[in-house]
Amino acid sequence: MDRQGAKPLLVRDYEDLARARLPADVWDFISGGSGTESTLTANRAALERIRLRPRVLTDVTACDPGTELLGARIAAPIGIAPMAYHRLACPEGETATARAAGLAGVPLIVSMFASRTLAEIAAAGSGPLWLQLYWLRQRELLTGLVRRAEEAGFGALVLTVDAPRVGRRLRDVRNGFVLPPGVHAANVAPEAMAASHRAAPDASAIERHAREQFDSSITWKDLAQLRALTTLPLVLKGILTAEDARLALDHGVDAVIVSNHGGRQLDGAVASAQALPEIAAAVGGRCRVIVDGGIRHGTDVLKVLALGADAALVGRPVLWGLAQGGAQGVSDVLGLLRDELEEAMALSGRPRIADVDRSAVVL
Amino acid sequence: MDRQGAKPLLVRDYEDLARARLPADVWDFISGGSGTESTLTANRAALERIRLRPRVLTDVTACDPGTELLGARIAAPIGIAPMAYHRLACPEGETATARAAGLAGVPLIVSMFASRTLAEIAAAGSGPLWLQLYWLRQRELLTGLVRRAEEAGFGALVLTVDAPRVGRRLRDVRNGFVLPPGVHAANVAPEAMAASHRAAPDASAIERHAREQFDSSITWKDLAQLRALTTLPLVLKGILTAEDARLALDHGVDAVIVSNHGGRQLDGAVASAQALPEIAAAVGGRCRVIVDGGIRHGTDVLKVLALGADAALVGRPVLWGLAQGGAQGVSDVLGLLRDELEEAMALSGRPRIADVDRSAVVL
Amino acid sequence: MDRQGAKPLLVRDYEDLARARLPADVWDFISGGSGTESTLTANRAALERIRLRPRVLTDVTACDPGTELLGARIAAPIGIAPMAYHRLACPEGETATARAAGLAGVPLIVSMFASRTLAEIAAAGSGPLWLQLYWLRQRELLTGLVRRAEEAGFGALVLTVDAPRVGRRLRDVRNGFVLPPGVHAANVAPEAMAASHRAAPDASAIERHAREQFDSSITWKDLAQLRALTTLPLVLKGILTAEDARLALDHGVDAVIVSNHGGRQLDGAVASAQALPEIAAAVGGRCRVIVDGGIRHGTDVLKVLALGADAALVGRPVLWGLAQGGAQGVSDVLGLLRDELEEAMALSGRPRIADVDRSAVVL
Amino acid sequence: MDRQGAKPLLVRDYEDLARARLPADVWDFISGGSGTESTLTANRAALERIRLRPRVLTDVTACDPGTELLGARIAAPIGIAPMAYHRLACPEGETATARAAGLAGVPLIVSMFASRTLAEIAAAGSGPLWLQLYWLRQRELLTGLVRRAEEAGFGALVLTVDAPRVGRRLRDVRNGFVLPPGVHAANVAPEAMAASHRAAPDASAIERHAREQFDSSITWKDLAQLRALTTLPLVLKGILTAEDARLALDHGVDAVIVSNHGGRQLDGAVASAQALPEIAAAVGGRCRVIVDGGIRHGTDVLKVLALGADAALVGRPVLWGLAQGGAQGVSDVLGLLRDELEEAMALSGRPRIADVDRSAVVL
Ligand SMILES: Cc1cc2nc3c(=O)[nH]c(=O)nc-3n(C[C@H](O)[C@H](O)[C@H](O)COP(=O)(O)O)c2cc1C
Ligand SMILES: Cc1cc2nc3c(=O)[nH]c(=O)nc-3n(C[C@H](O)[C@H](O)[C@H](O)COP(=O)(O)O)c2cc1C
Ligand SMILES: Cc1cc2nc3c(=O)[nH]c(=O)nc-3n(C[C@H](O)[C@H](O)[C@H](O)COP(=O)(O)O)c2cc1C
Ligand SMILES: Cc1cc2nc3c(=O)[nH]c(=O)nc-3n(C[C@H](O)[C@H](O)[C@H](O)COP(=O)(O)O)c2cc1C
Repeated sequence: MDRQGAKPLLVRDYEDLARARLPADVWDFISGGSGTESTLTANRAALERIRLRPRVLTDVTACDPGTELLGARIAAPIGIAPMAYHRLACPEGETATARAAGLAGVPLIVSMFASRTLAEIAAAGSGPLWLQLYWLRQRELLTGLVRRAEEAGFGALVLTVDAPRVGRRLRDVRNGFVLPPGVHAANVAPEAMAASHRAAPDASAIERHAREQFDSSITWKDLAQLRALTTLPLVLKGILTAEDARLALDHGVDAVIVSNHGGRQLDGAVASAQALPEIAAAVGGRCRVIVDGGIRHGTDVLKVLALGADAALVGRPVLWGLAQGGAQGVSDVLGLLRDELEEAMALSGRPRIADVDRSAVVL
Repeated sequence: MDRQGAKPLLVRDYEDLARARLPADVWDFISGGSGTESTLTANRAALERIRLRPRVLTDVTACDPGTELLGARIAAPIGIAPMAYHRLACPEGETATARAAGLAGVPLIVSMFASRTLAEIAAAGSGPLWLQLYWLRQRELLTGLVRRAEEAGFGALVLTVDAPRVGRRLRDVRNGFVLPPGVHAANVAPEAMAASHRAAPDASAIERHAREQFDSSITWKDLAQLRALTTLPLVLKGILTAEDARLALDHGVDAVIVSNHGGRQLDGAVASAQALPEIAAAVGGRCRVIVDGGIRHGTDVLKVLALGADAALVGRPVLWGLAQGGAQGVSDVLGLLRDELEEAMALSGRPRIADVDRSAVVL
Repeated sequence: MDRQGAKPLLVRDYEDLARARLPADVWDFISGGSGTESTLTANRAALERIRLRPRVLTDVTACDPGTELLGARIAAPIGIAPMAYHRLACPEGETATARAAGLAGVPLIVSMFASRTLAEIAAAGSGPLWLQLYWLRQRELLTGLVRRAEEAGFGALVLTVDAPRVGRRLRDVRNGFVLPPGVHAANVAPEAMAASHRAAPDASAIERHAREQFDSSITWKDLAQLRALTTLPLVLKGILTAEDARLALDHGVDAVIVSNHGGRQLDGAVASAQALPEIAAAVGGRCRVIVDGGIRHGTDVLKVLALGADAALVGRPVLWGLAQGGAQGVSDVLGLLRDELEEAMALSGRPRIADVDRSAVVL
Repeated sequence: MDRQGAKPLLVRDYEDLARARLPADVWDFISGGSGTESTLTANRAALERIRLRPRVLTDVTACDPGTELLGARIAAPIGIAPMAYHRLACPEGETATARAAGLAGVPLIVSMFASRTLAEIAAAGSGPLWLQLYWLRQRELLTGLVRRAEEAGFGALVLTVDAPRVGRRLRDVRNGFVLPPGVHAANVAPEAMAASHRAAPDASAIERHAREQFDSSITWKDLAQLRALTTLPLVLKGILTAEDARLALDHGVDAVIVSNHGGRQLDGAVASAQALPEIAAAVGGRCRVIVDGGIRHGTDVLKVLALGADAALVGRPVLWGLAQGGAQGVSDVLGLLRDELEEAMALSGRPRIADVDRSAVVL
């Protein structure tokens, strides 16, 4: 609990607390979207429009948001979206997040640009860990990383496909954002990360780095190479159309994450909650469907489950919690979301996740 | 009339008057909704969107909002929604409300957590009284209550089914809301109410009490038990789907109340006026349909009647009236709504309640 | 032109000018609507939503908004809605309005409660004059009035059917509005008008008067009586449904005015521009369709013509003009609307009124 | 880059920079729309509503916004809308704009009322130049102009058909706008331009000039005469309906520009992005479809391409750039739009313009 102010009771309360604690440019890096930030806004608006249809006189004494995802039992259909450099939010970084995720029993998707090593993170966390990858030009870097993830017991690989380059985030450009001293990608060869540490006025080091290192030529065919590297389940993050969801199925992925990268990539992209129904319909249960973008309340989770998602990821709120109170802050945020979801299940008469179907919402 | 300010001319004028008179935490308890209060907002927005289609050249010299509801003639298709602890709003509490309801000729649904005894209320009121129940873990408490309601001449039982627990109302949590001294549930054994009187920081005593005492395991099957207790008409409060309306019919209820508990239970739930049409269609006249949530003007009553309701209940406005001027304040609020409805009937060319059909509105 | 400020270039500029010149209670009487004023707002919003579809490469050198209405050639499909007591806005009252209407070549509908005699008005005006009537309990008053209208050369009778009583306009109630000294209905027996001159706190004299004098029992059958009185064309004002438009046709009316009385009668009533299409469809050209409510620009006139109206009436803007500059102010307002319409015809490639069809708008 | 403030990162940043540099009446002339400016607003709102559907795992290493338009290769499907008197924005005027357009490789449509001669502009610019014409009463003026355009190597003629007269722009009327000394139409006989230089209070000289000089009688039949004058491709600017698009095809035009003249002509006209789909459908690829109005970001270009346009024109932003930094400012604005479009192509998985089809957006 923040001593100065009131106890945060909603996820969005953590936003204010975090803003007050973080340097302005770090705050901007975390909060901002690309371009005019129209997709950032659209994500919330789309969720807000969806309304819940509660059922009554169901036994809800024991509501259990627990479910199964890619082979792991999880305490709630909630996960932590991959986000680079948790040390931006608190000195401890990803090990704090992992500890909190483990306690909460929900998966943490570790960003390729985590600021703690996979081994450190794995040691700290007791829950499912997945590794998120961007496809770098130096493919051997990927191979090494996948190997270390397997050794550290990671449970899935998440290839982010909405970022052949990094979207132009104007706050970062304006701030000339560069990683602060002491924060670096702990799992990628320093040479491949140098650009992220080179400041330049009116330019984002993060964006420049991606331009230099990301392989923007990869296509569906290249997936086979990743598949060949490992037997871990493979997840594609950044699907927003039924067409791509069908292609993902054709290429044997285990899950798709319906995401516009929290409004940080293609400005103007459709809200993820708006894209979800067509994707859920196209997938028809043949792989898992996960969604992220603007999830700020347990009822948002219930809404996307009703529209066909198997789980929802939370991004920024986790960094807010981290900024506000380290592992404890993350635990609080995750606990809040889980409790809100559990309450929403009780009050909508759907005691198990399997009870949440399309009839739970009206558009 | 308030001496300080202007005479209230709209129900919402009473809101300001009441806010000025009540302690802040009591005001918050009355006004607030659960979670982000999105359902609270949605209730009003849904009613505002509906537009009336007036007919002309009808004889409207004698417009009569009078109707029949569950066996009683009432002066208008308006009732007072069950609300706990009227003494929060004025020292006299429910007997004042009952007196006003009686004079107005409209039903008062007495909350299980009324702050005056059923006998006192019955003595004060000359109109229909119904008793609202939450299903407590100690079923014998229900039995006793139903018995006393029958003895006091109550005309119907209303089982609230949208509250297997009490929704998380953040204002109350923040205020550490607890019942003030002198206000207690007059019809429930004190032992079963103790939690409502135990203050704790950052927690609502009301919420804690419900967690402890409410039976969240009841299902449709349990209704039979309630039915067996009494021959009074049985009403289910908190129905928001056609599915549940059909189940209610199957279980022989006499009326359903389309309600999201004034936005105090499931945050994100559909507005009651949005849910109403599918429920009216499912019911097809086989039981009464009552609606509440955001009714603030006589034209709101006309709108929901057109969408298939037989009557509308008012919640908070009654407490505003009570806070502002005791029984007289409640009379004023009820009179205003009735007069506005009567005027709307005249100006829409529908002199009798039976004349109000679906053609009276456009969505 | 107002010397103090900028020349008014839009009809709404006159609103500010008039507000500055009129006593507050008179301003409120003119501007206000009934109840929550939701219909007042809806009228504008409905017009704003409609968009124009301009055609190009049409010869528009000579655009002529002239048309024919109920047997008279008029300079534009615009008329002045009947409004009581023009002397409230300027000392001269209706004769000033009539002069301006005559110069503009558009019809003036004289209210039954005009503050100048029919003879005076007829002497001042050179254009079509119609007489608006409310049906009073003393039917002989109507007979006399119709007789005098015929003698004064009025061209049509308009029976207002949306006012079996006067809607509750809260501004007037709050102001205890009463007609100021020197303003009275010049064409109705003083005995029948007395209530309009009796002040009472927290009550509108206008509303009280209507309660006392208006016959709220008249129905379609009574129209025959009015028909029998005169051979003048008969118009019904206040039709908002296809059902009533069909009944109007069945009863042989010459025109219907689609109107919600400028949001002054049934609060919550559908916007007139929203009701217009269903009425135009029901009428199918068998009688004239006129519309009023929120017309503030020449393009609004074009929009309603496209939706099936034969003409549009303007209410409040005429009183704004009158308040700002007497007959000249009204001329300015009418001239502005006419010029805006003429420009809109030119820029939408529809040089004659007959060219304006449904294809001119998109909803 | 503006030295005083932050580097502009979005097109709209240039708006503020330009406002600070220009005289108020010039600013108003550039920014304003006609009437209530409702179409000005609608243009942006319509674009904002459209959402993008990005595809993933496409090789986007080499995204090329290059395309072909009316026989010329252009670097991006972007052009500069014809705007009168660029010298209003910077002393150099159109030659600066032409230099920037040439460097950017995009077409510049030179207004008939350019403030530099066609020869000067042609000498300055290395890219495609088209000449925009209004049809003046003195047809011989047109003939001369077309001749000089051909001699100067212009590549197309654009006849603006939404301006049989100039729309009433109230800011200009209020400002008594007149061309400032030193700014005049360099390609039209001075006699025919005199009215544009005659100030009068409460009147726009621009509007008066058009009334005097524009031929508002021309129709589809007259197009033959223009066709006969030249072999240059012919473009019609100001088409907003499928009906007129079909007529344009029938009359053998090479392209239509879907435009409401940036909200400066018919107030209330449909937003160009709203009109686009019906026009694209009617045209069915038989001529080019270009659109303008409210294009402020590269994603706006992508959106209109997806709805069937072959290119988008930018108006005001070019003058903002010109005001802020002359040719460099225009280069910056064009470069920004091009880069934003290129990024949007990359992030939506559409590396070539041909890849952008209807599936790229959801309405
Ligand atoms: C600061 C920050 C860093 C991020 N880093 C990554 C990343 O490294 N890889 C990735 O796939 N997505 C990244 N994302 C996107 C998130 O995984 C996720 O899609 C998004 O944040 C979800 O939206 P939300 O923040 O509104 O919950 C990042 C997002 C933020 C806010
Ligand atoms: C202060 C307060 C106490 C309430 N107590 C009860 C209650 O004891 N039982 C119940 O079924 N509903 C209760 N409700 C819900 C009301 O019956 C009703 O559904 C709701 O207030 C209607 O919405 P409105 O307040 O917008 O008119 C309560 C509502 C309020 C505001
Ligand atoms: C001050 C005022 C007085 C009015 N008096 C009458 C009246 O006497 N008879 C009538 O039929 N309508 C009356 N109306 C309604 C108008 O005829 C018309 O329906 C309405 O004003 C149109 O809307 P607008 O004011 O938005 O243009 C009155 C309206 C106003 C504003
Ligand atoms: C200052 C200004 C002058 C213009 N002059 C002309 C013109 O001479 N001929 C023409 O066809 N359109 C003219 N236009 C309209 C533009 O060609 C174009 O349709 C419009 O500006 C596009 O909208 P946008 O400004 O929102 O991008 C002018 C627009 C502006 C803002």
